[in-house]
Amino acid sequence: MKIILVGASGTIGQAIEAELRGRHEVVSVNRTSGDFRVDLSDPASIERLFSETGPFDALVCATGSVHFGPFEQFSEAQFEIGLRNKLMGQVNLVMMGLHSIADGGSFTLTSGLLNEAPIRHGVSAAMVNGGIEGFMRAAAISLPRGLRINVISPTIVEESLSAYGLFFPGIKPVPAREVALGYVRSIEGAQTGRIYRIGWSRDG
Amino acid sequence: MKIILVGASGTIGQAIEAELRGRHEVVSVNRTSGDFRVDLSDPASIERLFSETGPFDALVCATGSVHFGPFEQFSEAQFEIGLRNKLMGQVNLVMMGLHSIADGGSFTLTSGLLNEAPIRHGVSAAMVNGGIEGFMRAAAISLPRGLRINVISPTIVEESLSAYGLFFPGIKPVPAREVALGYVRSIEGAQTGRIYRIGWSRDG
Ligand SMILES: NC(=O)c1ccc[n+]([C@@H]2O[C@H](COP(=O)([O-])OP(=O)(O)OC[C@H]3O[C@@H](n4cnc5c(N)ncnc54)[C@H](OP(=O)(O)O)[C@@H]3O)[C@@H](O)[C@H]2O)c1
Ligand SMILES: NC(=O)c1ccc[n+]([C@@H]2O[C@H](COP(=O)([O-])OP(=O)(O)OC[C@H]3O[C@@H](n4cnc5c(N)ncnc54)[C@H](OP(=O)(O)O)[C@@H]3O)[C@@H](O)[C@H]2O)c1
Repeated sequence: MKIILVGASGTIGQAIEAELRGRHEVVSVNRTSGDFRVDLSDPASIERLFSETGPFDALVCATGSVHFGPFEQFSEAQFEIGLRNKLMGQVNLVMMGLHSIADGGSFTLTSGLLNEAPIRHGVSAAMVNGGIEGFMRAAAISLPRGLRINVISPTIVEESLSAYGLFFPGIKPVPAREVALGYVRSIEGAQTGRIYRIGWSRDG
Repeated sequence: MKIILVGASGTIGQAIEAELRGRHEVVSVNRTSGDFRVDLSDPASIERLFSETGPFDALVCATGSVHFGPFEQFSEAQFEIGLRNKLMGQVNLVMMGLHSIADGGSFTLTSGLLNEAPIRHGVSAAMVNGGIEGFMRAAAISLPRGLRINVISPTIVEESLSAYGLFFPGIKPVPAREVALGYVRSIEGAQTGRIYRIGWSRDG
């Protein structure tokens, strides 16, 4: 398969690329490097991306920014970052990618545990993750041509502990290569409309 | 209690007002009528609302517009309607209402079943409802001064069947007065961080 991997140079993206590389043609896309570049927060750059990549079989998005900060001081502009980037960026990848994806292809987006297991400073991440998951469930029953869509919701990644670990007290981390398995399951499996929760559970 | 009811003239809002009227001082707020007026999609009008209402004990939002339409033709402008109105409108009611709500007060927002039980034409509603629920869960662990927040997620309302019934094939409706009980439970109960699903279940 020809797989477009947005966020290929990131912590999770690198692990996904390592899992897929042997069996598939992986097209890496980042903001500042890779086979192609895109700015998720800019719809015109997403349109341009697909004119550059041409047709493909699967699209994975393993990126998306949100602002973290104290709840009571959260500003409209800070909420807007997550809405434009991680939420509508991923939505636009699907809506615009629709025209270039092959019959039976798949979209795999990324959320995270914070909408169900909230943390201090994570109100925007919680909103955005919930939005992505709702979008995905409606898209799954609406996509034409046998197309599929799933969401990967990882817990905190071991390799990211030094950067964000303090925000996740008592949360058991998982290695990025375990998170990458979720993406493989979505791309190579047959399900659609699923949230693959990696390293955590709603009962936890 | 002094309760601000946004969307008081709506199908669900009227039923909420009928439940609360005897025991509480209900302040009705709509776009075009009521004790005060607000346009949810305009943050400045939400700021103004609270300067007009003064301090209060509970805020209920029983409104919020989203666009319904075919998935493949959904435009960025159509997604934006739901983001500005039902999602950020409700978020802004909480963030701006924080400064006027009394200690131990409560916020009650409205989502709906569509993020978990999607329907054709409902991709924006699914996204927005998921966003509201994620926001609420993070707000619940972050609110100061013993403030509480819950979400009511109603199924289709009997009184709305003639308007939207065709979109909900095989979904059992509930009367608006049953939905109103969810709001009473949120306002007069002690819980926070809950989604009260009225007339449907995630196992359905
Ligand atoms: N890491 C975790 O513990 C964790 C846990 C749960 C969920 N998640 C979610 O998983 C996703 C990836 O996380 P990560 O930690 O692997 O990310 P990361 O290491 O920060 O990597 C970010 C990647 O995204 C690219 N990127 C950044 N901004 C972009 C933009 N505006 N447009 C396009 N690409 C952009 C970067 O490219 P450049 O380097 O060229 O800018 C890089 O490839 C995020 O959505 C995150 O919320 C992560
Ligand atoms: N009805 C259902 O079956 C159902 C099921 C699940 C979820 N819901 C959700 O429940 C909420 C209420 O639904 P409903 O059917 O009761 O609504 P509705 O009958 O359409 O009532 C709308 C109410 O909101 C006010 N309103 C409209 N636009 C506004 C704006 N921009 N700013 C402030 N107020 C505005 C209206 O005031 P004016 O008349 O002055 O414009 C009216 O009071 C919605 O969020 C809906 O998605 C409804």
